[in-house]
Amino acid sequence: MNKSPLSELSSTLSDEMQSVDYLINQRMFSKHAPLIQELTNHLINAGGKRLRPLLTLACANICNYKGTYHIHLAAIVELIHTATLLHDDVIDESFSRRGRPTANKLWDNKSSVLVGDFLFARSFQLMVETGSLKILDSLSNASAEISESEVLQMSLSRNLSASEEQYMQVIKGKTAILFASACEVGGLIAEEQSNKVEALRLYGEALGVSFQMVDDFLDYTGTKTGLGKDIGDDFREKKITLPIIYSLQTQNQTNQKFWRRTLEKGNQEIGDFETAKKILAGDGSLERTRLEAIYWANAAKKQLKNFPHNKLNALLSRVTDYVVARVS
Amino acid sequence: MNKSPLSELSSTLSDEMQSVDYLINQRMFSKHAPLIQELTNHLINAGGKRLRPLLTLACANICNYKGTYHIHLAAIVELIHTATLLHDDVIDESFSRRGRPTANKLWDNKSSVLVGDFLFARSFQLMVETGSLKILDSLSNASAEISESEVLQMSLSRNLSASEEQYMQVIKGKTAILFASACEVGGLIAEEQSNKVEALRLYGEALGVSFQMVDDFLDYTGTKTGLGKDIGDDFREKKITLPIIYSLQTQNQTNQKFWRRTLEKGNQEIGDFETAKKILAGDGSLERTRLEAIYWANAAKKQLKNFPHNKLNALLSRVTDYVVARVS
Repeated sequence: MNKSPLSELSSTLSDEMQSVDYLINQRMFSKHAPLIQELTNHLINAGGKRLRPLLTLACANICNYKGTYHIHLAAIVELIHTATLLHDDVIDESFSRRGRPTANKLWDNKSSVLVGDFLFARSFQLMVETGSLKILDSLSNASAEISESEVLQMSLSRNLSASEEQYMQVIKGKTAILFASACEVGGLIAEEQSNKVEALRLYGEALGVSFQMVDDFLDYTGTKTGLGKDIGDDFREKKITLPIIYSLQTQNQTNQKFWRRTLEKGNQEIGDFETAKKILAGDGSLERTRLEAIYWANAAKKQLKNFPHNKLNALLSRVTDYVVARVS
Repeated sequence: MNKSPLSELSSTLSDEMQSVDYLINQRMFSKHAPLIQELTNHLINAGGKRLRPLLTLACANICNYKGTYHIHLAAIVELIHTATLLHDDVIDESFSRRGRPTANKLWDNKSSVLVGDFLFARSFQLMVETGSLKILDSLSNASAEISESEVLQMSLSRNLSASEEQYMQVIKGKTAILFASACEVGGLIAEEQSNKVEALRLYGEALGVSFQMVDDFLDYTGTKTGLGKDIGDDFREKKITLPIIYSLQTQNQTNQKFWRRTLEKGNQEIGDFETAKKILAGDGSLERTRLEAIYWANAAKKQLKNFPHNKLNALLSRVTDYVVARVS
């Protein structure tokens, strides 16, 4: 059986990933506030895919970077990602992630908010240590866009007139920009030519868009295993994701009435989630979402033509297939 | 009647403060998420003293800075401060600040968490624009220490064995370090000699320590007006502040029993806050706290000897008196 490209990336970059873990552990240590390390360990060691730091390491390597600061960068993107998870779980009042209780469930909201803030601030300290203003620019911009897009997402929840364009804005900001920056900084630290740095950024962005569309698809079809959050969360939280936008476009009166009651008004009854799944499978909305995710995965893949064909390039290419394989 | 040194600082630096407000407004504008600007305006225009940005501007001026980046720096410290207020009010479940409803009360916790994250990220973008790694280092370090100290403070709540040393660690981290950094970066942007930059940092730190001790004093004596939070909040939140630590040191058995019930066990009854105030006034704890605050205000003032005597120097000196005048 073929190993997944993520497992292969992990083995290929295992020494570097160990250094990333070491750095994270070292910088989370707080003599006075041991809670910080406990809570961070709970999240980072929770068996996530570590996709973002792997992308950073791979992109630095594909640009022949010979220094050690890509370890910093990989730790930074993992810390920013972890901080957003901590705050997201508080905001969404989620009690389970990857089949394990969330930090806000195990500890409390206070701890999750404060430790999230600490992780953001620590990641900025690590950026400053790289001494590169271009890197600081890329990552601080990503951080600002993440929170701006989450505010936008919040204001669009329950809003049945949310457009595809607004959906794209939300997912580019809340998900794709960190993928884009994770890849871009790998090129920047290697002082790669600007057109190649841009290719890495576009690879990451398209991959992130595809990744989020797949997540939004799986929320109406998946099983608990392998997914970040529990399935059905988007429905319960009345988020207007791409499958819903497509379903509303079909103008089916019965279905429209159902979405108005369950998402706009928020009156959800037992059995509604099953009905939602049936509607989206029946009216072609899930299939359209799947095709759109594949389109973006292919767009990501095309950017890799700017780099020499080698093992890492092939793995980054397979990562795009892997992301959408979850919906095939 | 004498004007307060803060009003005089405000008038002296009014053109620059207008530029700070303009910059903040400009960078809070979000076409897609107007909530960000609404919520930030609610806080920043709430009639706060604007002490931190005034300190930054004054310190840059006292070092004869002739550029324009001190405007950025003053905006940054105000944004960091505002972000911590937003998250603090969520954490402390406070519904009133400076006599007005808090953002988490007017909007909700989600908005406060996300907009706080956005303000932190925006402040980092502004730091990057200054192009100074020393400034980035100072302010990113301050941000990390603020959240680390808030985690420490949380873990010390209800803990009657908290020491004076731990209290100092908490207030140096959660309050004084931002005062210190606000002053330090004024010197750094002016490329002032390092001993003078250090003097500004020490001035800010000592002023911040004094400021926080006064706040902790006023929580058991003050009236609502002029204070950041409502009086009695520390008691209700079971925070172990300096007056409590001093009271526990007196070893009065009756009082100890009272603190064990109300703070350690958290069983608070009607009339307990009045009793708490009486105990602290009677056993000399408030007086000791007052004297300690004055000690730190004087320590701040001494650092100003490193700078030429002029109007701004005199105002910064009077600010130290003003901070402790609230307890006299």
